[in-house]
Amino acid sequence: METRSNIITLLTDFSTKDYFVGAMKGAILSINQGVKIIDMTHEVPPQDIFSASFTLRACYRDFPKKTIFVAVVDPGVGSNRKAILCETENYFFIAPDNGLLSFIFNEATKFRVYEITNDKFFKHPISRTFHGRDIFAPVAAHLSNGVKTNKFGNEVQNFVRFEENKPRRISEKEIEAEIIHIDRFGNLITNLAQKDLPESFTLEINGTKIKKMQNFFAEAKNQELFMILGSAGFLEVVAFQDSAVNILSAKIGQKITVKVLA
Amino acid sequence: METRSNIITLLTDFSTKDYFVGAMKGAILSINQGVKIIDMTHEVPPQDIFSASFTLRACYRDFPKKTIFVAVVDPGVGSNRKAILCETENYFFIAPDNGLLSFIFNEATKFRVYEITNDKFFKHPISRTFHGRDIFAPVAAHLSNGVKTNKFGNEVQNFVRFEENKPRRISEKEIEAEIIHIDRFGNLITNLAQKDLPESFTLEINGTKIKKMQNFFAEAKNQELFMILGSAGFLEVVAFQDSAVNILSAKIGQKITVKVLA
Amino acid sequence: METRSNIITLLTDFSTKDYFVGAMKGAILSINQGVKIIDMTHEVPPQDIFSASFTLRACYRDFPKKTIFVAVVDPGVGSNRKAILCETENYFFIAPDNGLLSFIFNEATKFRVYEITNDKFFKHPISRTFHGRDIFAPVAAHLSNGVKTNKFGNEVQNFVRFEENKPRRISEKEIEAEIIHIDRFGNLITNLAQKDLPESFTLEINGTKIKKMQNFFAEAKNQELFMILGSAGFLEVVAFQDSAVNILSAKIGQKITVKVLA
Repeated sequence: METRSNIITLLTDFSTKDYFVGAMKGAILSINQGVKIIDMTHEVPPQDIFSASFTLRACYRDFPKKTIFVAVVDPGVGSNRKAILCETENYFFIAPDNGLLSFIFNEATKFRVYEITNDKFFKHPISRTFHGRDIFAPVAAHLSNGVKTNKFGNEVQNFVRFEENKPRRISEKEIEAEIIHIDRFGNLITNLAQKDLPESFTLEINGTKIKKMQNFFAEAKNQELFMILGSAGFLEVVAFQDSAVNILSAKIGQKITVKVLA
Repeated sequence: METRSNIITLLTDFSTKDYFVGAMKGAILSINQGVKIIDMTHEVPPQDIFSASFTLRACYRDFPKKTIFVAVVDPGVGSNRKAILCETENYFFIAPDNGLLSFIFNEATKFRVYEITNDKFFKHPISRTFHGRDIFAPVAAHLSNGVKTNKFGNEVQNFVRFEENKPRRISEKEIEAEIIHIDRFGNLITNLAQKDLPESFTLEINGTKIKKMQNFFAEAKNQELFMILGSAGFLEVVAFQDSAVNILSAKIGQKITVKVLA
Repeated sequence: METRSNIITLLTDFSTKDYFVGAMKGAILSINQGVKIIDMTHEVPPQDIFSASFTLRACYRDFPKKTIFVAVVDPGVGSNRKAILCETENYFFIAPDNGLLSFIFNEATKFRVYEITNDKFFKHPISRTFHGRDIFAPVAAHLSNGVKTNKFGNEVQNFVRFEENKPRRISEKEIEAEIIHIDRFGNLITNLAQKDLPESFTLEINGTKIKKMQNFFAEAKNQELFMILGSAGFLEVVAFQDSAVNILSAKIGQKITVKVLA
């Protein structure tokens, strides 16, 4: 597709306490002053590729076509890990090749991946520790100016791709699932989509059984634990006006059990 | 007034740790790529309608005419609480009908309130838990594109409106006031405006008397407690180079006493 | 140079929890709706002029020519400290006259400093406690509209300027240096530039000797302490997948020792 674009979004684990985000914005604007830079988040937990992936996955479809998504959570910066540019039918993604974009590879029907190697589009001198500023941001800016995707490097077929961690039937009456995210309100987001859910079930987390399913938060009594089909498309465990993560001492990555009742 | 607008501001309790803010921005830009999105704050304490109200009230007048203010602190999301659009002579406000906009209803000389019901302007499917993305953001974007306010739903006369919590004379020599906000620096903002203050007075908080009134921070000695007429228009209790909230163990909502000296 | 500009960046210690940042943005947009406002950071530790200075210094060169940098860390607000506007060959800087811009005075080959006094360009009434909204933001906005620098006040020769804290040879075999910043990942940034480093050396911090020098993070084993020449141009002490500041109990401003081996 035409690569000229009005919007570059930034997702990093840099926080906004440092100069890192400022430097990336400056690098972009030095190449394209007209582009709109949208902060998606800079509060990904340090080096947590999985969390970055969840956040981007949960909202990229809300953006207009041709949006350029830059995602920099990059523990391997400076090593021989690749930098990649992925073009789907609607979007562009720029990230280190560390699995962060796996959800795109698993979801998109058509996509191409390019290894970013053409240093004509980099900021020089290229540091060994901050490719956000020196590679990812300038490449995004040049792309927004209309540079074709195949100018940044060769198309590649091998790139890091994690299989999606899906719920697993472990017995006739049990499904093993997982907590994949904990949000700002302390809600626990599971990897259970609507299609994974039996008609009737209870959920067990750290010995606590949760039975109640609701349509929205305010249906509940205060502090009561319940389940809800959340806005990212997954089953969530919620405590109205309270924090489910605190009540249940739950952790990201923790296994949970669905007991099938019917 | 003409509803076409260049600026949409966002105020939420979502924090920037999650996909919520990204999703709202994407929803807006999908409808109007030209609009400027301004983050006012996403750090409102979870579900604290009063704090959101204070922040918006303290700065909305600084924005140019026709700015669209979106405020989403929404414990009742998905329930039958209304979504409302308020048009004043200069501005537009979009929020859940939970009292967040009370200050507008109390301050504005002329305003109209519309219940937002026309789902032609919503993002589908409409979730039960995230109206920020599915209702408030898209409605703001359509408004910025010039859709007339009365297209979003009917004008209504009944909406949630809290009376302003004003200082109260409790005896000849005493006024009861309240701490309504604590800012980033630990300064205590009271509900006392200049007109509420006697010529000479002391302020008592948790047994500590504060007598000194100053014009600016650097007049004081370090750690010294004093009062100042702050930039939001209210009396503030401040400790220069220190945190008044820590020194006084004060809390939002706490009553304080003005002792009238003259 | 021509003062019309498309970009105003904001750096403050206001955090985004309060109305302060919103108010500054509103004040700017009320004067120039077309300008792009870029958040550099609002998370400078309260009243830490040195930290603000480090952050701005580390990334201003990444921005395009004519960018207007507004930096408000201002413990002396309302006192007789000056407000200043500094014009270099490429950029504009607006800040309180408290040393925050020292790095510019030390680095720039040509620059002029103006005392900001012309209240025609201020927001009225001018508070004594929030010049970010009432002076710095509106002056930046008028500058971006093309108002000449000398319209804001007289050029001045006396302004606060801190000498740069450089490493110091304290014996034939020892250099005394300092930790000048600790970043989001817990990396310790020193005041040692490449030119300050002997060919072979160890670094001593709180009794721990660090010998290993690396080119990038992922070369190291987990938790291992090492040194790296960082993206801001200074030697950094890093622990891969861990926090050097926690391991070493280090502090900003702390002296460290370079032991010269060759």
